[in-house]
This record gives sequence, structure tokens and C-alpha cells, in this order.
Amino acid sequence: MIENRTSSSQASLERVVDLLERHELVENLLDRQPGPRQDLVEHLVHRQHLAELQQLLEQLHAADVAYILESLPLGQRLLVWDLVRADRDGEILLEVSDAVRETLIAHMDQRELVAAAEQLDADEIADLVPDLPQDVVRDVFTSLSSEEREQLRAAMSYPEDTVGAVMDFDMIEVRADVAVEVVLRYLRRLDDMPDHTDQLFVVDRDAHLQGLLPVNRLLVSDPEAEVGEVMVREFRRFTPEQDARDATQAFERYDLISAPVVDEEGKLVGRLTVNDVMDFILEAKDSEILSAGGLSDEEDLFASVWKSVRNRWAWLAINLVTAFVASRVIGIFEHSIAQLVALAALMPIIAGIGGNSGNQTITMIVRALALGQFTRDSARQLLVKEISVSLLNGVIWGSVVGLFAFVMYRSWSLGLVMMSAMLLNLLLAAVMGVAIPLLMQRYGRDPAIGSSVMITAVTDSGGFFIFLGLATLFLV
Amino acid sequence: MIENRTSSSQASLERVVDLLERHELVENLLDRQPGPRQDLVEHLVHRQHLAELQQLLEQLHAADVAYILESLPLGQRLLVWDLVRADRDGEILLEVSDAVRETLIAHMDQRELVAAAEQLDADEIADLVPDLPQDVVRDVFTSLSSEEREQLRAAMSYPEDTVGAVMDFDMIEVRADVAVEVVLRYLRRLDDMPDHTDQLFVVDRDAHLQGLLPVNRLLVSDPEAEVGEVMVREFRRFTPEQDARDATQAFERYDLISAPVVDEEGKLVGRLTVNDVMDFILEAKDSEILSAGGLSDEEDLFASVWKSVRNRWAWLAINLVTAFVASRVIGIFEHSIAQLVALAALMPIIAGIGGNSGNQTITMIVRALALGQFTRDSARQLLVKEISVSLLNGVIWGSVVGLFAFVMYRSWSLGLVMMSAMLLNLLLAAVMGVAIPLLMQRYGRDPAIGSSVMITAVTDSGGFFIFLGLATLFLV
Repeated sequence: MIENRTSSSQASLERVVDLLERHELVENLLDRQPGPRQDLVEHLVHRQHLAELQQLLEQLHAADVAYILESLPLGQRLLVWDLVRADRDGEILLEVSDAVRETLIAHMDQRELVAAAEQLDADEIADLVPDLPQDVVRDVFTSLSSEEREQLRAAMSYPEDTVGAVMDFDMIEVRADVAVEVVLRYLRRLDDMPDHTDQLFVVDRDAHLQGLLPVNRLLVSDPEAEVGEVMVREFRRFTPEQDARDATQAFERYDLISAPVVDEEGKLVGRLTVNDVMDFILEAKDSEILSAGGLSDEEDLFASVWKSVRNRWAWLAINLVTAFVASRVIGIFEHSIAQLVALAALMPIIAGIGGNSGNQTITMIVRALALGQFTRDSARQLLVKEISVSLLNGVIWGSVVGLFAFVMYRSWSLGLVMMSAMLLNLLLAAVMGVAIPLLMQRYGRDPAIGSSVMITAVTDSGGFFIFLGLATLFLV
Repeated sequence: MIENRTSSSQASLERVVDLLERHELVENLLDRQPGPRQDLVEHLVHRQHLAELQQLLEQLHAADVAYILESLPLGQRLLVWDLVRADRDGEILLEVSDAVRETLIAHMDQRELVAAAEQLDADEIADLVPDLPQDVVRDVFTSLSSEEREQLRAAMSYPEDTVGAVMDFDMIEVRADVAVEVVLRYLRRLDDMPDHTDQLFVVDRDAHLQGLLPVNRLLVSDPEAEVGEVMVREFRRFTPEQDARDATQAFERYDLISAPVVDEEGKLVGRLTVNDVMDFILEAKDSEILSAGGLSDEEDLFASVWKSVRNRWAWLAINLVTAFVASRVIGIFEHSIAQLVALAALMPIIAGIGGNSGNQTITMIVRALALGQFTRDSARQLLVKEISVSLLNGVIWGSVVGLFAFVMYRSWSLGLVMMSAMLLNLLLAAVMGVAIPLLMQRYGRDPAIGSSVMITAVTDSGGFFIFLGLATLFLV
């Protein structure tokens, strides 16, 4: 979710911080001067700030309260959380990030948690369950109706990132053999339609999906007509087992607002909405940005030092191993470096530019793979293109670094070795930049994760080896 | 748009490639054996494949045709493009990526381009204009109605990434003083409502927006009631000058489907829909991924080598400069390296882990900035946290690398220098990792772009300087 917050949300945040600070100021005074009279006055002022804060929170949308909770350090966060009306706990827990949700749940007792979960729909409860204590889950489960229990079971049975995990159950179902007029009368009896009801789902007795009835079509249809005559019979449907990314593509390309989810027998089991899909896109984007930056997981901005260290552990360890390998490659050529110490100063240039160029190739290939743009022929064609690009780059940038080496050390032979090493390392970067993501894909791994670390490891160690190797052959 | 394509789109792509290949096979035979009889037979077979291909393309959604065009090398792409029915050119040009659109437009004559543009709405034409030749734009402009001309001018007057550039003009307007029944009758007379019409816009004579009338509310309202009684009076509105990212946040958080855009006098000037917003999110995400990978611009998968080299130029040049600086830092200490050559092998470890750790900090801070989570106090608090994390990491990873140095070179003093250098470089990475994005933000630059290059430059040169400097002081 890397977008600027709307200015109004940020204004609310500043107001909250302001009230909290005034509240804390009073509390500090209270601590210092415990005279009985003053005490009373200040206690009132202090409570007044909290009352004002509570009022402000009540006016805010759940998403805005979530944003404020995420932006506050733990102490202030819990103070604000206690001021939120208990019947809003559920919706706000849904909105906050996983890391912040943990801190809030840790602060609540079993009764509060059960009450919060009970305010939610089955598909929403399913999103919370992984973070809830076992006891709470059991209590919530027993409090549900048998239909909701079934839905909760269904929603939890699908792995993350499948359509089944993203869908909801808020659909209005109608029969094909009733008149449009009857449907309109039925809708008028409802207090409110579920969010994102742009269409009704036409099912038979056994819940088999027969068609869709867009609300807009309902408006313009003859009231006497039967639903079966005016419904849409051709439409896109999804299965719960399908990859949720398929659904995001379809929503984006075909401009859908909601779509039915059916099982293998054609029975309607749920509904996808554009907002489920948008949340999924933003979360996926967020975790891509985090992993590209070397963070394993979303991190609470105010997480403890120890927690942050653990979150960043894995990537640093992997990089340390690749750095050790590169170091040992250099170690092999210590004898050459001792004789021509300029090599030590020049070698990071070869490694660095190789890594940069390899990452450019990887970005292209990973993107093409994700978009499914690889046909039988294109892999070879792309490899040829990337190799040509790297040859041209090698000649251009190789000349530049060769010239740099010459200017610094007044040696044409050193410049030539520098240029050749650059050319060869860019070539290595191009070949591996195409090969690594394709191999990862073939062995069923996500090429977006980790291929950047791998190419950098290859161009580092490879670059040192090529440059120092050439230098040992021709210069020492 | 880094998502897996739906399997059905990919199946279509494979079918297209298959037909193209059979077509090419026949063409090759034709070239080789120009006997008159065989010629005729093969010519028919050949035309049959193209006819089949044309039929397939006609059944596909414009977005799917766009995807196929993007996935084909230039020759095949233009062959397919010629087979597409002319009256679909406009919508397909809208769907393809900028880089591919260029190749298609270069292949069309003025008459075709004008015809294609004329099929589109004003806000869609505005998206194409930057890619169209001047003559075509003039012709299209004269062919528009005066209202459409006004809309086109409006849409083009707002900078990219503003609400005005993303909005469309497909809204249904009603008056507050008519009965719901009248509105229903009016809607029934329309052939079709615009996409994403989840609400009508209630305006007065001078186009001032007075309220919103959700379609769902229209369905459940008393037909005798006046629009003014049932309309929603509190709603989120946007201005055309506003940052489009504000709108994406609001759509995501408040689950909107459409929203009004009003000017400073409160007049309705356009409409935002969830799909405009979703396209904007996916494009922004795409360009973030490209720039993180060191590509300046979207690149056609089958772009010419020369074009690709130019697209990758800027980042390689910047990195070359930082690499030269790092090289000169090492140059200062050549004397020390000549005396203790192990330094050359160990120094990339310090620089590499520093860069990695700095990038982790930057990712956290850039994310918090984008989410607007910085309050007056949090900058100091975050700096303290990042410094603590780096100290703890410095002790842990410093010990590991110190031990590595000892095991390799049997020198406790070398190990100690290694450990201290690691600690100091991680500290530098933490301080600069917080400072760089905050400074960029203060000076009005986007901290998401370029801060990763800057931190790596600092931790490279800084790491070499710290390590070699300490070694010079204590070891040489």
C-alpha cells in the first residue's frame, strides 16, 4: 500500500497525536505535583482530552482508525485502542496490518476477542482466525449459525492466494421463473443490499448457477418479464481453487465489479468483488516491495528491536554467504593483487556494473513470465536480444571503464583487461539473467523472489573471477 | 501488471502462435516450390489459416487481443494487427502497453488512426493523444462534437497522476425535484447504462452537485418520493487537481465503486470509477518494479537492441559513477592493501552487508512515508530504533565476519578490525537509511525513486573507507 494517504486522514492523525500529547503533558504534571487540589483540576482536564479524542475516533471510518493505530507507537496505540467503542473492534481489526493486529490482540482478553469476532461475517472471521488464540476460535465457532459455520469452514479450507480465500458470501440469489416485478418487491423489503451488489445470482433449487441479473438491467426491464428471459447467460466465473491472481487479471481486463464463484458441479459457493480483488493486489504489491528490500515480512513501524532484527535476519544471512564466496574468489588471486594492487581498487567496478545490468535483464524476464508472455519461440529470441544488448553495453561501458583504468594507472594493458572483463561479465549477467528466472519457473518456484539475490551473487563472484583471472594471465 | 495471466488468455495466445506458425510454414513452402498447381493449393491452405485466426481474434475481448499483440515479435504482431477488424482498433490501442502501442501506430496510416480514435470517448482519446501524430490529432479534434471537444480539452489539461487525468465523463445526471418514478422511466428509455453506474449524480441547473442517488437505493425507494428526499447528501468527492494516489487510497479504504469529481465551485466535472483507479494502481506498481530493477521505462519485450540499450543507459551510468567513487576510495589505501593483501578479499563483505542492511531500513522508511505514518515524534523514535537494530546486528554479524577473518587469516587483530568495521558500517547504513528518504521528501522528491542507489553508494564507499581506514590505523 505505497500510496500517499488522503490529506483528511492525515489531518485526523495529527489531531489524535495532538490530543494524546496534551493528555500526556497533564499526566506528567500529575506525577510531579501531587497536591490534592491541583490534582482534581488536572484530572478533569486530562479526562476532557480523552473524551474529545473518543468523540473524534467515533466519527472516523474504521479504515482511518486503523491507519491511526498503525502510525502510533505501542503505548499511545493501546491507549487509543481502549477508547474505541467495543462494537467497532471487529471491523478495525480487519483493517489493520498483520503486525499491528498482533499487538492489539495481545492486549485484549478472551471475552473481548470473541465479541469482536462475532460482529463479522464468516469470510471476515476466516481472515482473523490465524491470529486468534485457540480458545477464542472455539468460542466463536460455537456461537455461529450452522450456515455460517459451513461458510467459515469453506473459507478456511482454501490456501491463501486462492479465489476461495478471497471470496465472500454476500450474494442475493433469485430463481429464473419469477417475474422481475417480484424480484423488485423482494429487494424493496431488504433494509439494505450488500456492498457491491451490481448483480443478482440466478440459481435453481440445488444452487446451480444459471445466470446473472445485473441490477442495471433489472431497472430497465419490463416488470412483467421473467428473470430467466432477461438474465445474462454468458459470463465469467471462477472456481475456489483457482489462483487469486487469475481473478485480479480478469477483473482488471474485463472491468468486473462482482463475479460468481462456483464449484466443479456448477453450484454457486461465493462471490468475488472488485474490492476483495483490489485489497489482494495492494497486499501482493506490498509484499513484493518488502521482499525486494530484503524484509521477510511486514514490520510494525514501532516493532521491538529484537523483532525487527529477526525479520531482517534471513536476507542478511543469505547475503553474508554470497559475500563469503566472493571473498574466497578474491582470496584465490591474492598473489596477483599483491603484485598489482590497482586490481583491488578496480575490481568492484566490474562486479557492480555486472550486477546492475543483470538485474535489468531479470526485471524484464520476470515481468514477461508473470504476464505469461513466453511462447515456445520467445525464450530463444529474448536470450539473443539480451546477449546483443550486453555486447553493445560491454563495448560502450567497457571502453569507459578501460579509459578510467588507463587514466588512473597509465597502463594500456590494464585498460584492455578491464574492458574485456567488463564485456565478459555483462555477457555472463545477460545469460544468467535469462536463465535464472526460467529455471526457477521450471522448478515451480516464484521467479520474482530471490532471483535478484542470485544474479548479484553470480555477477559478484563471476566478475571478480573474470577480472582477476584475466589480470593474472596477462598482467602479472 | 505482474500477475499471472488467466489460463484462458494464455490458451488463446498459444492457439494464435500455432496458427501463425502453420501459416508461415506454408509461406516458406510457397517460396521454395513455386509450381503453379501446388501454389494454388497451398495458397488456399494458407488463407484458410489466416481466416481461422481472424475468426479467433473476433471472439476475443479487446484486452485479450492486446495481450496477444504484446506477446508476439514485431513481424507476427503486425500480421495479427492487420487481421483485427478496423472498428476494434481504438479499444485495442487503449489496452496495449505504451511501448507496443508505438509499434502499432507506426504501422497505421492517418485515415486508419483517425477512424480508430473516433470510436473512443473523449477521456480515452486523451490517453492516446500523446502517441498520435499531430495531423491525426487535428483531424480527430475537428470531428468531435463541441461537448466532446470541451471534455477532451479538460481531460488533457490535467497532468498525469492527477484525478483529472484519470476521470471519465460517463455519468447520468438527475434533478433533485423529480420523482423516483420519473427517474426509473428515464432509465428504462436508455439502451444501456454506462459501465460502473452504481449511482446517479443529482445536480441543479448550473451543474452544482447536490447529492448522490445509489442505484440500489433507487430500487428500494418509494416510486412516489422525490429524488431530493432519498439521495445521499454526505459523500466523498474529489477535485481534478488532486493527486490520483489520494483517490486510490480512498477507493481502497472506503470500498467505493464510483465517485464524483467537482471543481472549486462545486460543479460536477467528471466521475472516477474503481476500474480507472485499479488501472492506475497497476500502472504505478509496474513502474515501481521497473525503476527498482533499473529500467527507466516500460520496454517492449521485443524492442530493438538499440532501444533497449537506451532504456537501460541512465541507471548504468549513475552506477558507474558511484563505482568510480568507491574505486577511488580504495585507491587511497593501496599502500595498506599492498602490505596486507587479505584486506582486498575481505572489504567487499563489509560493503555488501552494509548495503543490504541500509536497503532494509530504506524500505521501511519509504513505506512509512508513503503511508503518511510520520508524525512529529516518530522520526526521532524510528532513528533510535534503526540505530539499535544496527548495533545489535553489528554485534551479531560483526562477530560472524570477524570469526571468518580469523579462520581464514589466523589473525585476531584482523578479526577485530573486521568486526568493528562491520558495526560502524551498519550504523552508517541505519543513519543514512533514515536520513536519505526524509531529506528527499523535504526537498520535494519522491523518496521511492533513487534512494536505494544512494544508500548503496554510501555504504559501498563508506564501508571501504571505514574498513581500510581502521586497518591502516591498527594493522599496517
